[in-house]
Amino acid sequence: MSSEPKKIVIIGGSAAGPKAAAKARRTDEFAEITLIQRDPDLSMASCGYPYYIGGTFDDRNLLVCTPAGIPRDPKFFDKAKRINALVRTEAINIDPANKTVTYKNLDTEENGTVSYDSLVLATGAAPVCPVAPGFDLEGVLTLHSMADADALRSIRDEGKVTRAIIVGGGLIGFEVCEALRLAGIETTIIEKTPQVLPFLDSDLAKLVENHTRLQGADIIVGNGVAEFLGEDGQLTGVKLDNGTELPAQLAVIAVGVRPNIALAQMAGLEIGAKGGIRVNEFMQTSDPDIYAAGDCVECTSLITQEQNRAPYGDLANLQGRVVGQNVIEPGSARFPGNTQTGICKIFDFTVGVTGLSDVAARAAGLDVETVVISGLDIPVFMGGKLLISKLVAERGSGRILGFHCVGPGDVSKRVAIMATAIMGKLTVTDMVNADLPYAPPYSLALDHVIIAAHALENKLKGRMQGISVSEVKRKVDAGEDVFILDTRNPAEYEQMRLGIGETLIPQGAIRDRLEELPQDKDKEIILYCKISLRGYEVSSILKAHGWRNLKVMEGGIMAWPFPREK
Amino acid sequence: MSSEPKKIVIIGGSAAGPKAAAKARRTDEFAEITLIQRDPDLSMASCGYPYYIGGTFDDRNLLVCTPAGIPRDPKFFDKAKRINALVRTEAINIDPANKTVTYKNLDTEENGTVSYDSLVLATGAAPVCPVAPGFDLEGVLTLHSMADADALRSIRDEGKVTRAIIVGGGLIGFEVCEALRLAGIETTIIEKTPQVLPFLDSDLAKLVENHTRLQGADIIVGNGVAEFLGEDGQLTGVKLDNGTELPAQLAVIAVGVRPNIALAQMAGLEIGAKGGIRVNEFMQTSDPDIYAAGDCVECTSLITQEQNRAPYGDLANLQGRVVGQNVIEPGSARFPGNTQTGICKIFDFTVGVTGLSDVAARAAGLDVETVVISGLDIPVFMGGKLLISKLVAERGSGRILGFHCVGPGDVSKRVAIMATAIMGKLTVTDMVNADLPYAPPYSLALDHVIIAAHALENKLKGRMQGISVSEVKRKVDAGEDVFILDTRNPAEYEQMRLGIGETLIPQGAIRDRLEELPQDKDKEIILYCKISLRGYEVSSILKAHGWRNLKVMEGGIMAWPFPREK
Repeated sequence: MSSEPKKIVIIGGSAAGPKAAAKARRTDEFAEITLIQRDPDLSMASCGYPYYIGGTFDDRNLLVCTPAGIPRDPKFFDKAKRINALVRTEAINIDPANKTVTYKNLDTEENGTVSYDSLVLATGAAPVCPVAPGFDLEGVLTLHSMADADALRSIRDEGKVTRAIIVGGGLIGFEVCEALRLAGIETTIIEKTPQVLPFLDSDLAKLVENHTRLQGADIIVGNGVAEFLGEDGQLTGVKLDNGTELPAQLAVIAVGVRPNIALAQMAGLEIGAKGGIRVNEFMQTSDPDIYAAGDCVECTSLITQEQNRAPYGDLANLQGRVVGQNVIEPGSARFPGNTQTGICKIFDFTVGVTGLSDVAARAAGLDVETVVISGLDIPVFMGGKLLISKLVAERGSGRILGFHCVGPGDVSKRVAIMATAIMGKLTVTDMVNADLPYAPPYSLALDHVIIAAHALENKLKGRMQGISVSEVKRKVDAGEDVFILDTRNPAEYEQMRLGIGETLIPQGAIRDRLEELPQDKDKEIILYCKISLRGYEVSSILKAHGWRNLKVMEGGIMAWPFPREK
Repeated sequence: MSSEPKKIVIIGGSAAGPKAAAKARRTDEFAEITLIQRDPDLSMASCGYPYYIGGTFDDRNLLVCTPAGIPRDPKFFDKAKRINALVRTEAINIDPANKTVTYKNLDTEENGTVSYDSLVLATGAAPVCPVAPGFDLEGVLTLHSMADADALRSIRDEGKVTRAIIVGGGLIGFEVCEALRLAGIETTIIEKTPQVLPFLDSDLAKLVENHTRLQGADIIVGNGVAEFLGEDGQLTGVKLDNGTELPAQLAVIAVGVRPNIALAQMAGLEIGAKGGIRVNEFMQTSDPDIYAAGDCVECTSLITQEQNRAPYGDLANLQGRVVGQNVIEPGSARFPGNTQTGICKIFDFTVGVTGLSDVAARAAGLDVETVVISGLDIPVFMGGKLLISKLVAERGSGRILGFHCVGPGDVSKRVAIMATAIMGKLTVTDMVNADLPYAPPYSLALDHVIIAAHALENKLKGRMQGISVSEVKRKVDAGEDVFILDTRNPAEYEQMRLGIGETLIPQGAIRDRLEELPQDKDKEIILYCKISLRGYEVSSILKAHGWRNLKVMEGGIMAWPFPREK
């Protein structure tokens, strides 16, 4: 205690802020740490809101207490961490020259000023609200704060709302959709663009759409909300861009979030092209005494080194920790960047992504190859469930760039593996030989990620030509002259089939029935089976017999998101 | 078809053999492929045997059929893959000079000879049988073949056996133990060494022991089977090394497997120091025309480059694929090595390991640091379950060397992440900032593996001194003069406590109660809480106040495998 204690001021008390405060305290017992939080709650488990709303659990305290059951209130922050947490308090000005922050207590309206050696901005993001008329009606909500969660949970508990609209088909939109559906509410997602889950491969997104509809929720794409309709100030429905009117007593707006950068702008800090506060790898802003972390900042892609926004709770915590370290020991911790990894539960499906989609990779100037595969997570005899994945790699180097995975199976593990592989700059060939934990309760002998890598290696080495389900659909709809070959058994064909003009020749019979194929060896032949492994095997046989234009429909019937004959 | 078709002969039809055959066929439609298999079955899902025996599923066909329900018999191999599979056929000689294999049909006793361009040895491994008297009694079994699985399943279905002994406390021993226990049989595992699951950290192994006992199975360690006792040729019990006799109508021997190398030796192939066939990265033996794969070979560690044996089904498949590629296009595929990753379900626990234990790492000459942590896999409000892990890294570089994880939580995902991290040569600091898929159904905001990495980084950087639960137990038992501090709340203390002479001072009260601590600042203080996070936080506070000999009991009470007061 030879020198003056360091003064640390942190604005924002949700995720990054409290994490930075706690880490700073662990690093320096004597620093003066002030946490300024506008909401009444601190360190809320906000990603848990949808599960509280949907009734996965009923004890609200679980969202705002420590695992030992102690509320994370200012008293707790004082006793356990000696952090001065000011709630219901808004930071209204930063004076970077004099290194002070002015704040206002929202209950007493009193102002105060606190000086800092290091300031941390963890101001988060705010929901984007459409400017459609009527958005201020009673019954139009967002899901952002604990108060929002309380309001939506009350709606569930009261049981009066029968129809709801979700505006926006992103992660939060789907999470809220599931919660409301579980509460017995008829729910429709309205997505302005032609595709829900815009970060996801479009064919996989269609499979998620199908699953959501099977769960009794509706989805309308390519149509926005033009107007919120109401009576006596209360929402009664929405009018869509195409004129359709839908009744609803509840609308939840979930069209995304926008970084809260007003204070940063006031302080003259650099804002990045993506709209977030610009920080370096130490999470330092353009003012070296001001750090920032969480939803308000931009991240650096570990893959492209480009800036991106990734408003996720885990990154807020990771960054908060780096900041908490650096405000005490400048330059001692780095946040190298992110891979835009995300995951979401949608009824019995999980949707997970890591890295770049092929669209994003091409936009970043990379030369890519992709593959889609279907398969089980664990053996049939252990109750295996389906996974449908798209793997993206760079041609030439074979470096894994991205992985998308959906389905009822254990998506989370496979996305986590691939996120780690991307971090480790592993190639498709590395993953082909991955030594992963195998036992029947957990994996196939060759895990789904290994099979995906192997399929992509086959494409990269020219052993397999693939075609996507949507490209097959397009060709069929356009009446193109292609020969379509289903390589399954007659029993399977009787049970389920596409009905797109296919010919059935089982894999085991193909060598004896080559004369049934087009004898023009340049004719385009599209092959598939349930997951297209047998389709691929048959393509190898036909290739050896001289056919030259063979395309395996990637993922097989399990990846087909369009209507089937059977 | 300008040249003669390649002649490929494969000995062994379980995992590596059929995989090599199938891959060779996909690579060359016209090769002549012969598969020689001693057992009547082909391509059995042998890792599924315990789950068939235990009644997880009842349809035996699931172990020997394709996902489409077709038996993987010689007819299937012929029709679907044009592979000539000879079952009930034993290869009895290899003539490497003339490149022929002589075989005998075990039913007809007729011999035959087949010539090869490339030969593949996928001869597997055989269970080690103890030489104890009576091991040939009726009722003494192993679990290796489909016939063994059938026999054990019959025992379950007949319901006559009431007491069983498992000889050997390794992976297979525990899997069989669970299966028999689920069949209602009183089961005792007998392990000759002082520890079950010898590949696992000894403290974590004790937790698994405790869990197994809670499920009603018994475990005896440090005691071998001296004799199998019987009447009229039928097992009635076992006599242990210490003279104890245990009644049993069934004994399953599971003390490990030994590579089947007799044919390889006959052919003059190089055998490695670990007892397996020596192969290069192309899976080629010392005879360039003979390849080998699966349980009969040695692997190269990706971490130390040393040879090891890893008789796991996934590696057999990975290697089989490499061989199948190389027999057609020599040198076109590599198997770079393994990380000794394995996993096992033991009742409601999962036990997973990847890489090196600290013991193995030190034996390999590496300077290592370790940490043990406890924590939930997902949030409490989502039904989180416990994980207890040990992470091993190299000092200096921080490179992750190994990870052990046990508990009722999702171990599989965490081991898969760390296996991938080891493959990617990631460091502890890389993992501290890992962008993993986060949503409450799948993970904490900071996943268990990230927390483990962070704790180890704290140790590597000297921010935390740790002590293992067994070292604490040793100190307490030896009556050493240490001050033991439990930093939880009184309510938690009332519910559960160690009773090892600890003093309770809750984290939130510590700053006001420093005078209750030993005023000799060099006195050894051991701190813990439920998982030792609060223990660590309090150690930071005490360090700031001048205490110099602080040790956090790693993993906290959740990692304590010894009896507790409460």
